[in-house]
Amino acid sequence: MSEINPQRLMKDLRHLRTIGKYGTGVVRPAFSTKDMEARQWLLDRMGEAGLNASMDGVGNVFGRSPNPGKGILIGSHTDTQPQGGWLDGSLGVIYGLEIARSFAEDRRTAHFAVDAASWSDEEGTYMGMLGSRSFCDILSRDDMERAQHHQTAQPLSVALKQAGLAGIPKSRLNPARYSAYLEAHVEQGPHLDAQGKLLGVVTAIVGIRTFRLIFKGQQNHAGTTPMAYRKDAGVALMELAHVIHCEFPTLAGTRTVWTVGDVRLEPGSPSVVPGHAELLLQFRDTDELILDALESKTVRIVQEAHEQGPVEVHLEAVSPQCEPAAMDGTVQECLAVAVEAHAPGKWVRMPSGAGHDAQILARSLPAGMLFIPSIGGISHDIAEDTAEEDIVRGCRALATATEALLRQANPV
Amino acid sequence: MSEINPQRLMKDLRHLRTIGKYGTGVVRPAFSTKDMEARQWLLDRMGEAGLNASMDGVGNVFGRSPNPGKGILIGSHTDTQPQGGWLDGSLGVIYGLEIARSFAEDRRTAHFAVDAASWSDEEGTYMGMLGSRSFCDILSRDDMERAQHHQTAQPLSVALKQAGLAGIPKSRLNPARYSAYLEAHVEQGPHLDAQGKLLGVVTAIVGIRTFRLIFKGQQNHAGTTPMAYRKDAGVALMELAHVIHCEFPTLAGTRTVWTVGDVRLEPGSPSVVPGHAELLLQFRDTDELILDALESKTVRIVQEAHEQGPVEVHLEAVSPQCEPAAMDGTVQECLAVAVEAHAPGKWVRMPSGAGHDAQILARSLPAGMLFIPSIGGISHDIAEDTAEEDIVRGCRALATATEALLRQANPV
Repeated sequence: MSEINPQRLMKDLRHLRTIGKYGTGVVRPAFSTKDMEARQWLLDRMGEAGLNASMDGVGNVFGRSPNPGKGILIGSHTDTQPQGGWLDGSLGVIYGLEIARSFAEDRRTAHFAVDAASWSDEEGTYMGMLGSRSFCDILSRDDMERAQHHQTAQPLSVALKQAGLAGIPKSRLNPARYSAYLEAHVEQGPHLDAQGKLLGVVTAIVGIRTFRLIFKGQQNHAGTTPMAYRKDAGVALMELAHVIHCEFPTLAGTRTVWTVGDVRLEPGSPSVVPGHAELLLQFRDTDELILDALESKTVRIVQEAHEQGPVEVHLEAVSPQCEPAAMDGTVQECLAVAVEAHAPGKWVRMPSGAGHDAQILARSLPAGMLFIPSIGGISHDIAEDTAEEDIVRGCRALATATEALLRQANPV
Repeated sequence: MSEINPQRLMKDLRHLRTIGKYGTGVVRPAFSTKDMEARQWLLDRMGEAGLNASMDGVGNVFGRSPNPGKGILIGSHTDTQPQGGWLDGSLGVIYGLEIARSFAEDRRTAHFAVDAASWSDEEGTYMGMLGSRSFCDILSRDDMERAQHHQTAQPLSVALKQAGLAGIPKSRLNPARYSAYLEAHVEQGPHLDAQGKLLGVVTAIVGIRTFRLIFKGQQNHAGTTPMAYRKDAGVALMELAHVIHCEFPTLAGTRTVWTVGDVRLEPGSPSVVPGHAELLLQFRDTDELILDALESKTVRIVQEAHEQGPVEVHLEAVSPQCEPAAMDGTVQECLAVAVEAHAPGKWVRMPSGAGHDAQILARSLPAGMLFIPSIGGISHDIAEDTAEEDIVRGCRALATATEALLRQANPV
């Protein structure tokens, strides 16, 4: 069984944490200066590891093994939320790098092809899972042109140009090269930590639907406009949010989640009745029927508010939506054998409440995911953390599964 | 009876509109480059009119008549909302300028003292009615130090320095100089326009109380954090806003208004459970008992939400609050006689739903206000407008009232 280098793994993870460091967390949103600095740093590490390293036209960093044969692709992302945790994405990328280089150093595994990837903009600063979508060639020219910064509305094309990526070709997947795609990630939820489990084998990844609700009223003076004359876009927004809060639980499954992550009132002055307001609503489940029910309910709530007036209410999908994705059965079995070896009796099968690039890759390759615990279940926050022994154990388990899949795909 | 110059009045109003022009409206928030440009322009006009013109250390522009005797002070403001209308404040300032210069040109009135003022930051970019509060000497050093930009949190002291006002002395009111303070303003509400009235004599100005509600939850991943584990600051905010929306009508009088003018969720990402949220709540009435009842209710709603959890909720007053202010009876009578002369049977007595500098001046001088119609009642919006004949009529009526008050105070 091949052996990874825990010191080197932790050293690289800690170095990556310094790029865009913000308190105990990291600020590296897609295509920011710090995001690009991290990508450049990763390119250098991949080159040192003997991989053919390159960055493509959407910022994907790819390290290709010079070896032939059916390979394994291991990836995740190094971009972060506006204020993110240090392991979200970075963990899986450095696992891929460490497994590729430790396999290359070991004569028993040095002939195998392990490719490592860091996909761009998984967190959706411009478009969720942009890099893996581009790599799997499921983006239309329209999708690319519509993509814009979720807060500033800067077009993706401008961000790519500013990041120096204009004119660079986009890498595409050759499915024939791989027997599987693997991705490890911190759980980002409380289940492993709360149950005292050390590893999780992912069964399926949630689908995600995101909508922007737009309220058009009449901006007016907050002192002289009688309540009955108002077309207050903010009141309409908050009353609609209350209806969602009341109605969604009746349609939800045990793991369904929904979130109003942002609200904006314009012009945003204490003495002005808001004339325009927007709200971002997102919901997630592994069950497409539940997603459909929540979407229908949202459409109905918006229609009713619009018809009731006095504020106009419209809804638009924030593209692209993510379908739920089941993980491959054979890959799950390989991961199950590996985690039982490294944490006997202390692992579970579980769905992923977070979206991951693996749900995009799963359309084209057998895909599997491994989770390690998040302390207190905290993520998308600078307080996100995982014990060092859990980080090392996760990399060892993923290496074991990688080797097993490579041996299956390349019989002697 | 003295006669104003309608062409000159309209020319100055139209010129002022070009400084910071934004569509049909104006962007001239306090201490911005355009606000300071407008103040400089006004200083020059006051000088041309024979007034001793100066700008003080908080940006108040003051034109003092060289004449002795009991005078009349006429003022308003030239700063605007983030996107404001062209007449809000500017109308009253140019009325003051026009009345001072037309009186000076007429031998029957040339001996009277008419002073004209443009107060700074009436709209509360840093502190509502900053200029008139400073002029009336009711601001503590503490008030000045706490004042900050309502969105960017830039301290007032920094804004004053950037505007070139650091170290300039502050002008103070000498109450002995004046028999009254007068202010004309567009109504900014629908009452005159809807009733087909041409002028309004203000009986009292509303009190205004503004509160910031602060919600502290736990930022977390919007996919992996089960609904039951969440401490969602945004949900707590929107549910509390719903309670206000339900409860306030039971305590309100016929003219009470309340407004949630701004809401902020942090970090404001569709995939992150908000860990922090803030809301600005303002309410207004001429009746202090109603204001007290609404404030008590707000405190109770906040306490209950805080105790219920899981999100911490706190409330802080956005200082300084404005007390309701009655207009002086004698000044009201003078205005009533004047408006009856210019719009027989087509005027009303009415309270002001908007706050105005007159409510500050009313603490130190007999004060009165005149309203002219706002088309459709629209204000604090670039669509704000008033018919030219209504603008001219208003200035004539104010000039008539000014002359009557001067003759009363300075008997031959």
